[in-house]
Amino acid sequence: MKHQRIVLAARPTAEAAPEHFRLETVATPDVQDGHVLVKVHYLSLDPYMRMRMNDGKSYAAPVAIGEVMVGGTVGEVVASEHEGFVPGDRVVCMGGWQEMVVLDASVPGAVRKVDAAPASAVPLSAYLGAVGMPGVTAWVGLNHIIEPKAGETVVVSAASGAVGSVLGQLAKAQGCRVVGLAGGAKKCDYVVRELGFDACIDYRQHPDFKSLAAALDEAAPQGVDGNFENVGGLILDVVLSRMNAFGRVALCGLIAGYDGQSLAINNARLLLTQRLKLQGFIVSEHMALWPAALKELGSGVASGHIKYRESVAQGLAAAPEAFIGLLKGRNFGKQLVKLL
Amino acid sequence: MKHQRIVLAARPTAEAAPEHFRLETVATPDVQDGHVLVKVHYLSLDPYMRMRMNDGKSYAAPVAIGEVMVGGTVGEVVASEHEGFVPGDRVVCMGGWQEMVVLDASVPGAVRKVDAAPASAVPLSAYLGAVGMPGVTAWVGLNHIIEPKAGETVVVSAASGAVGSVLGQLAKAQGCRVVGLAGGAKKCDYVVRELGFDACIDYRQHPDFKSLAAALDEAAPQGVDGNFENVGGLILDVVLSRMNAFGRVALCGLIAGYDGQSLAINNARLLLTQRLKLQGFIVSEHMALWPAALKELGSGVASGHIKYRESVAQGLAAAPEAFIGLLKGRNFGKQLVKLL
Repeated sequence: MKHQRIVLAARPTAEAAPEHFRLETVATPDVQDGHVLVKVHYLSLDPYMRMRMNDGKSYAAPVAIGEVMVGGTVGEVVASEHEGFVPGDRVVCMGGWQEMVVLDASVPGAVRKVDAAPASAVPLSAYLGAVGMPGVTAWVGLNHIIEPKAGETVVVSAASGAVGSVLGQLAKAQGCRVVGLAGGAKKCDYVVRELGFDACIDYRQHPDFKSLAAALDEAAPQGVDGNFENVGGLILDVVLSRMNAFGRVALCGLIAGYDGQSLAINNARLLLTQRLKLQGFIVSEHMALWPAALKELGSGVASGHIKYRESVAQGLAAAPEAFIGLLKGRNFGKQLVKLL
Repeated sequence: MKHQRIVLAARPTAEAAPEHFRLETVATPDVQDGHVLVKVHYLSLDPYMRMRMNDGKSYAAPVAIGEVMVGGTVGEVVASEHEGFVPGDRVVCMGGWQEMVVLDASVPGAVRKVDAAPASAVPLSAYLGAVGMPGVTAWVGLNHIIEPKAGETVVVSAASGAVGSVLGQLAKAQGCRVVGLAGGAKKCDYVVRELGFDACIDYRQHPDFKSLAAALDEAAPQGVDGNFENVGGLILDVVLSRMNAFGRVALCGLIAGYDGQSLAINNARLLLTQRLKLQGFIVSEHMALWPAALKELGSGVASGHIKYRESVAQGLAAAPEAFIGLLKGRNFGKQLVKLL
């Protein structure tokens, strides 16, 4: 049996481009004792993958040249040599950019069944978005770093994305004023009308500090108490400048700098004068919180209280273009690749 | 009765200079009901005062033009219309840059007696340093933001100063490797030999990133887990670049930027990739912690376990020059002005 996969062909020195990826056909490995073979239905594309393409100090080792690109996947067990799994089980796993994957199911958390939730209420793809890593990322950042009080103002960048959309809906449910930032009128409109944010700023209309700050002043007239930051750069500088005393910043991503751009916080003085807390975090280092988060997110999606949107690319070969588009904000909602 | 005082004559647009201060002789106010008249023995000079000379958003209102410069003081009650005080009481108060001050003793915390500690063991001036606001600042930042574990490496800038010297000694007592930064061989020598730090880097010998980073690599071969930051700018950038995962930065001061210099954190990416926590704080907003801190610091000074050094300027008229010297690092240890 053979399957297709995409490996890292070369490291980008600036923007990621198609030539940094290579589509290959390889023999599917045998299923050894304790392992399962998963047929991947959906591959998740996420901004963090861009950092894994770079060499250098980070929280995770870079993907090696010639190695399969990392990525979260959902799919179906098609062969099992592990007593806990049978063919037909729907699972979430870090399968990477490939159609089939063999994984050691005896490693805790490596292969997770999602059958516990009613199959009808939560579509399989949602386990890569609102009821998966992105949703849990929002949940952890909001409840364990920002810890908002009702009435406070929370700002989130990349508001229509997989993480930001959940973040805003959770904060809104906790009684906060929620302001999003997104690129383009269509996304902003969706964020306010469909997701229920109080306001959403189209950052593309505000390319400089003064203009963006004025827009934020209008959207957040009481200042900003919590910031869930996915972007960095100018957006973070502006939000910091509008933070109230004792504000909290959950630093989740810095997509503005993934291609190697300088990522300064220009007004560091405000961290002191406003007594701010700024904390970087990685959701995979908070595994103890996942069960509670997934339970709440699963109920929210099943009941329709948590809404989400997906951009779905068709077929593995479409993954590089879809990923490059994600980094440029061309996607609208959770970016997936449908393999089956 | 008359006394001398120093008021803010003009706001600096860059460095503070003598012309921004004015020495005046004024009539000492009457002592109204509930008030006490304090004869000031020592005035404390601290970097935060530079920020209070600027207009603009900060944690405390700026000193108004023509108003007495703010400042912590210790002295002796010479007249009292408050039942809790009698002439001869030794007190700590925010008396400002003046020889005499009338204060409303009914305001909680406005006038604090220090007679509880054995007079012989803790000199009055220490209540402005190791057993006062600077000491408590170190204590709060270390125990409530950095929260070091034994064996971790803690770095502190302005290491020979009133705050840094206490910080390092407390961290050392908790089993940490402690690395200081100070300006000049004399201060570095004092920090290591007298205060017991493991190493101290003379930042003046390392004016660029590469050189300072190499010095830090040598002094902190296991990387940095906690940083108590008094300076900012290049020093903070270098320390951040050497921080281990889950490092904590207590942001106490940014003396590198008090004259209006740009204060960027140039490598904000590290906050995310190393999952750092950076928190600004003001010691006066943690009043609940003061009693425990003062008790430990008082015992430490009385027993000789906490050492400190003072630079004492003579007479109120010497305060502006001493303050300007402090901002340039010309002092060596806690900067005081002796008024009596």
